[in-house]
Amino acid sequence: MTEKVVIIGGGAAGPKTAAKLRRENPNIQIDLYTQEEIISYSACGLPYFIENIIQNPETLIIRTPDDFRKQNINVHTMQKCIKVDTDKESVLIEDLISHNVYEVNYNVLVLATGASPVIPDISGVDLKNIFTLRTVDDGIKIKQKMRESKKAVLLGGGYISVEVMEALVANNVQVTLIEHNNQILKMFDEDFAQMITDYIIGRNPGMVNIYTNEEVKQFEGNDNGEVTRVITHSGKVIETDFVVLGTGIKPNTEFLEGSDIKLGIKNSIKVDNTMKTSKHGVYAVGDCTDNFNLVTNRHTWAPMGSTANKEGRCAAINIAGGNCLFEGILNSTITKYFDYTISLIGISYKQALEFGFQPEYAIVTKSDKAGYMPDKESMTLKLIVDKNTHTILGLQGIGEGDVNQRINTVIPAIIGKTRLESFMNLDLPYSPPYSPAIDPVLNAAQIIYQKING
Amino acid sequence: MTEKVVIIGGGAAGPKTAAKLRRENPNIQIDLYTQEEIISYSACGLPYFIENIIQNPETLIIRTPDDFRKQNINVHTMQKCIKVDTDKESVLIEDLISHNVYEVNYNVLVLATGASPVIPDISGVDLKNIFTLRTVDDGIKIKQKMRESKKAVLLGGGYISVEVMEALVANNVQVTLIEHNNQILKMFDEDFAQMITDYIIGRNPGMVNIYTNEEVKQFEGNDNGEVTRVITHSGKVIETDFVVLGTGIKPNTEFLEGSDIKLGIKNSIKVDNTMKTSKHGVYAVGDCTDNFNLVTNRHTWAPMGSTANKEGRCAAINIAGGNCLFEGILNSTITKYFDYTISLIGISYKQALEFGFQPEYAIVTKSDKAGYMPDKESMTLKLIVDKNTHTILGLQGIGEGDVNQRINTVIPAIIGKTRLESFMNLDLPYSPPYSPAIDPVLNAAQIIYQKING
Repeated sequence: MTEKVVIIGGGAAGPKTAAKLRRENPNIQIDLYTQEEIISYSACGLPYFIENIIQNPETLIIRTPDDFRKQNINVHTMQKCIKVDTDKESVLIEDLISHNVYEVNYNVLVLATGASPVIPDISGVDLKNIFTLRTVDDGIKIKQKMRESKKAVLLGGGYISVEVMEALVANNVQVTLIEHNNQILKMFDEDFAQMITDYIIGRNPGMVNIYTNEEVKQFEGNDNGEVTRVITHSGKVIETDFVVLGTGIKPNTEFLEGSDIKLGIKNSIKVDNTMKTSKHGVYAVGDCTDNFNLVTNRHTWAPMGSTANKEGRCAAINIAGGNCLFEGILNSTITKYFDYTISLIGISYKQALEFGFQPEYAIVTKSDKAGYMPDKESMTLKLIVDKNTHTILGLQGIGEGDVNQRINTVIPAIIGKTRLESFMNLDLPYSPPYSPAIDPVLNAAQIIYQKING
Repeated sequence: MTEKVVIIGGGAAGPKTAAKLRRENPNIQIDLYTQEEIISYSACGLPYFIENIIQNPETLIIRTPDDFRKQNINVHTMQKCIKVDTDKESVLIEDLISHNVYEVNYNVLVLATGASPVIPDISGVDLKNIFTLRTVDDGIKIKQKMRESKKAVLLGGGYISVEVMEALVANNVQVTLIEHNNQILKMFDEDFAQMITDYIIGRNPGMVNIYTNEEVKQFEGNDNGEVTRVITHSGKVIETDFVVLGTGIKPNTEFLEGSDIKLGIKNSIKVDNTMKTSKHGVYAVGDCTDNFNLVTNRHTWAPMGSTANKEGRCAAINIAGGNCLFEGILNSTITKYFDYTISLIGISYKQALEFGFQPEYAIVTKSDKAGYMPDKESMTLKLIVDKNTHTILGLQGIGEGDVNQRINTVIPAIIGKTRLESFMNLDLPYSPPYSPAIDPVLNAAQIIYQKING
């Protein structure tokens, strides 16, 4: 009988585990330790707070420590876990205010320590007004600085930079994005990355520069220690009022060095499909854990807020004696740049080749509604199918049309290994305000069918 | 070697078959006979033409007879097939202008005769200004009459009546809908039909009356033979300027009486999954054929424009020597009443019981986006799962939120027989402008999981 569950981490996965576990078991003792002051907030909403679509940052907080205390969950803020001893079934916690260190025993431990931004090793990176975006506090600082700024530099061409770019452009701040790869959004095929880049550049002429194959050599500051210029390796000199680093994140697992809890890809915590780590009684959930990719059948590290929630729920069910399997992920991602959706699931054509599949693909550009509906919008889809098994490997979708609907249509087809021949005749509901008579995602499947069958 | 393909019918399925067959085989002779003047139009768009979202009815025409002639497809308009002789491999065609009857030989025959409105046997039903809505001409007549009208009566509470109701209310015409069942939209469970009814009634106060459990006894007219009053069995007297009959459709198969082509459910033409009828060399596609329901594993008749297109395409591939299977349908339907989506796939809870399943269900009302996004909209989903197999039987979705996205998520899961346990952890892409961290359709699955697992 489990008596005391200790949860480390207060982002998405930890609080979800706590809340679900309390619903499953009204009596078990639950203690949650977090190094932050607030817990249970939606980090994914921060770009929309910066943009000012959301005015009050408290809106992003799902539950307060008091909400948890009312459910008899003990929340300890500003308390950082610095060591795990699985033999003694205890953790060492440092109080970040008093700096006292104390030991806490557990019967079950849940590690939900999340991930942190990677700070690139660039001269001047510690100047003022060089930000990362991970916490509510980060969001507040960027929003404040944005309001008095005209120009910003974003480092890294991932989703977070696209989202911050929207926020800044909407607030009349000129943006220069610097990406060291030859394309932004590296999970996409090059053709799609180029179409996305063209859209972003074209939407607000003069507001956005995107430099690929470019690296920052140095940040220069003024006498107040505030960043004023970004110097690149190719010799570009970019004046700026502030910088946001979107140069990746890493799992928060340093405190496990020397412990016997196994780490996996990129030092994320290895878990099985019940969310158990290598050590009995220790679970891990959320951005600090590794993931199993159901398309490639390989372990990967794909931190996502939605996955964190599902894993937390699953771990709670299992801790309470239930039987929940978290089978894996599909690398599903979606974001938008203003009205333009950018989404991908599974793997790209390029990745399919790298992983040894024999991919075939089709690209279609179609209306999302019947062609005669005046509010139709366009979208472009790229469907990837494995020629050996005729099953779907991935879908990339972009455009002002309803891409999400098509992305979601493919997801269970990947899981269910639905063959192309069945998928292309899928009975999707049809009405002119919702889709053409044959949905674009089925069109794409039909084209691949023709390619494969000559 | 097929030399001459004769296609009967010019709605959606016939023209699709012809166009696809020409792409598959540039040389084969294709003759298409239709009793109408125009061919290849989107009947599903007619309500939006009436509403005046679409101004020009020609917009609904996908291809003209001339377009087909340019592809070397011989289109014969105003020519009605009155008999099929499969022994002689010929059809009898009546010229609807000259009334000459002549014989046409075929090597392959494709029946795509569609369906027609059922005219109820009610006194006065042949009065002027009592319309059905099936052809472009019907749409033009209703639109003209609507523009000089204040009040209308709709008979039957199916999708077509909901769509016409939107068109009329948007044009300031008061509507009374009369339905003989105890609910509108009989494919929905009663709870959902009630919520839809409440929404419709509430959206434009005073503009809509809905009478269920009510039947029309008589239509009364004025001296010009124009309908002016509708009298019901319960004694209601409803003044009206016109009436639209939405009292169902039937397959156009009367001309097959006495032929050896087997008919199935409701006199639709029995086809196998290659779109072949019971007679060699005779295919049938579209609204005149029966369908195989992949949830109930039974034959049914579910005429839909999207299915007609897929079947036409499939038949063409097979006629050209390919191998396309049309495995079946899911009774997928979607429509809207202004911004309110109404959609269903698979079967309802009520039907699940009737078909002998052991269903469990969950109803969730949630935001379609993260709760803190200001443009979020609400929706209500009802997911039905079979307790024996843990597979999904159906989903009903209504509301101003993005229901279609969730409906589409379930469709391949039904086909792939994805178990609830996998479905509830599906890696749907997450970002606050697109969904909550755990999508509402997954919430519904989680609730059923809890119900089943206690």
